[in-house]
Amino acid sequence: MTDPTSTTLRIPTFDDVKAAKERISGAAHRTPVLTSRTADRRTGATLFFKAENLQRAGAFKFRGAFNAIATLDPSSPRRSVVAFSSGNHAQAVAYAAKLQGVEATIVMPKDAPEVKVAATRGYGADVVFYDRYTEDREEISRSIAAERGAVLIPPYDHPDVIAGQGTAALELIDEVGEIDLLVVPLGGGGLLAGSALSARALSPASAVIGVEPEAGNDGQQSLRKGEVVHIPVPKSIADGALVTHVGYHNFPILQRSVDDIVTVTDAQLVETMRFFAERMKILVEPTGCLAAAAVMGGTIGTAGKRVGILLSGGNIDLEKFSSLLRGQ
Amino acid sequence: MTDPTSTTLRIPTFDDVKAAKERISGAAHRTPVLTSRTADRRTGATLFFKAENLQRAGAFKFRGAFNAIATLDPSSPRRSVVAFSSGNHAQAVAYAAKLQGVEATIVMPKDAPEVKVAATRGYGADVVFYDRYTEDREEISRSIAAERGAVLIPPYDHPDVIAGQGTAALELIDEVGEIDLLVVPLGGGGLLAGSALSARALSPASAVIGVEPEAGNDGQQSLRKGEVVHIPVPKSIADGALVTHVGYHNFPILQRSVDDIVTVTDAQLVETMRFFAERMKILVEPTGCLAAAAVMGGTIGTAGKRVGILLSGGNIDLEKFSSLLRGQ
Repeated sequence: MTDPTSTTLRIPTFDDVKAAKERISGAAHRTPVLTSRTADRRTGATLFFKAENLQRAGAFKFRGAFNAIATLDPSSPRRSVVAFSSGNHAQAVAYAAKLQGVEATIVMPKDAPEVKVAATRGYGADVVFYDRYTEDREEISRSIAAERGAVLIPPYDHPDVIAGQGTAALELIDEVGEIDLLVVPLGGGGLLAGSALSARALSPASAVIGVEPEAGNDGQQSLRKGEVVHIPVPKSIADGALVTHVGYHNFPILQRSVDDIVTVTDAQLVETMRFFAERMKILVEPTGCLAAAAVMGGTIGTAGKRVGILLSGGNIDLEKFSSLLRGQ
Repeated sequence: MTDPTSTTLRIPTFDDVKAAKERISGAAHRTPVLTSRTADRRTGATLFFKAENLQRAGAFKFRGAFNAIATLDPSSPRRSVVAFSSGNHAQAVAYAAKLQGVEATIVMPKDAPEVKVAATRGYGADVVFYDRYTEDREEISRSIAAERGAVLIPPYDHPDVIAGQGTAALELIDEVGEIDLLVVPLGGGGLLAGSALSARALSPASAVIGVEPEAGNDGQQSLRKGEVVHIPVPKSIADGALVTHVGYHNFPILQRSVDDIVTVTDAQLVETMRFFAERMKILVEPTGCLAAAAVMGGTIGTAGKRVGILLSGGNIDLEKFSSLLRGQ
């Protein structure tokens, strides 16, 4: 979305998160909240890890996609959606659409890994390719939406997507009670904005901190400057957070309800991924490690605090996983 | 334990499992029950995976160890335990003892991996080494127990250990309701015997099946012959199930309450380990994959059934994990 004025935006509230929770119940997993004495001992804190890597289709994205699709008018002939993504959002939309009997078209780069194309098709979606060097995926998606009478489901810059993503933090706080601090991975801001809505409502004294890759600190810059800052496509192993700017529906919520945005390095992400595998027996993709890396690596001081940490996803190729751990 | 007559044995009952559940509450994790549409589609069944790889110290062993230590007389001067193991039982006893303020001595082979020795010492245990080619670890453990006034906590052949292990299936059935079939990894029979006690009490119509490595089918032989059969130390990647015979406290329960024992190959274990990592984002060690491999690989027919599957542990070195997946 290109810089709309805030008057044209429908900014979601916690009521939207609660409505989303109703819609996704029974479809999305209520993922477990994991704990680790080792992690607590290292940080001096009490950490609660919300394991969205164990969510359906392997990431929190399923929540927002399912919610956005569930808000389509059931009597409408337009029971068709389109999304552009080569990552977790693609599979989430394809899967959520299938479960609701809705057609899905996913716009993916020509050079997307065959395994991701196969997974997306496996959920019954129609895959349309584009050339990432010469074509604009948003434009292609909009023209497909127009041609097919389909509704575009953006990956983060959308009120129903934000509301859906907020259900993860809602469940976390519902399960463990009030917390002192909520730490959330930040890419385009769907998860962070949704989480902030839930934290403000359910644990009002809690601080909320977003974490992005050092190489792509557009969110941090935006918060400091008071406007959405655009950067070139960043380079990091956190491939789910390589956005050029946070969403315009998301930013007002970040401004109002997020206390700080910090960054971590790729090396910190790898160390955290190793910790999760070795000690907690779970696979968390690099992007999913952002929040935990800032806490475990000491970027955010947490001693004596009760801290909620969102693990956003687990979709990493096992060869890539092994090679990152070997330092390659 | 060497072939006692059954009159000398104290065989646990489901009441012992319930008592164990009380003792371990708050200490052991109530591990999540995970589901996978992909696994359900492949098998035509509804599968419930009890994720004991997410248990404290990475395996179900913590349950039995904690329970056995909790039954020690708190007023006794003998607040000291000894265990022999190079695997999950060692760490479980060390950790459970530490949490209860009890001294622990762990007898480990001289050539045990440094990382396991360090982990066991990290839990505060005293490690005593033996030579696995020339010395008898049971004898050493008994003499340490006598010298130090310590109580020996055997890995499986003990009523309080069996009762503790039974709490995993108790929680599983409590969470998902009655099932048609419960499938459980089998080494010495602690988990299988305990699980059978819970299944018989809480889901009486459920069949119970144990799964052991093809190379070490002593349990299957024992069930068929009607007595505890001893075999040479088997060779399999399921390093938690390399026992020469099932326990004497365990066998009467297996005879009474286990419907069948089947075997799987190492190749099936690797494929199942890959499935858990790729699709379910969890690390399960080869032994922990035994039950799931028999179901996913079709050794046990499950179509149309509600099936509980115990994943017993997740303690595998990440390099070993990678090399197994690469087929080395």
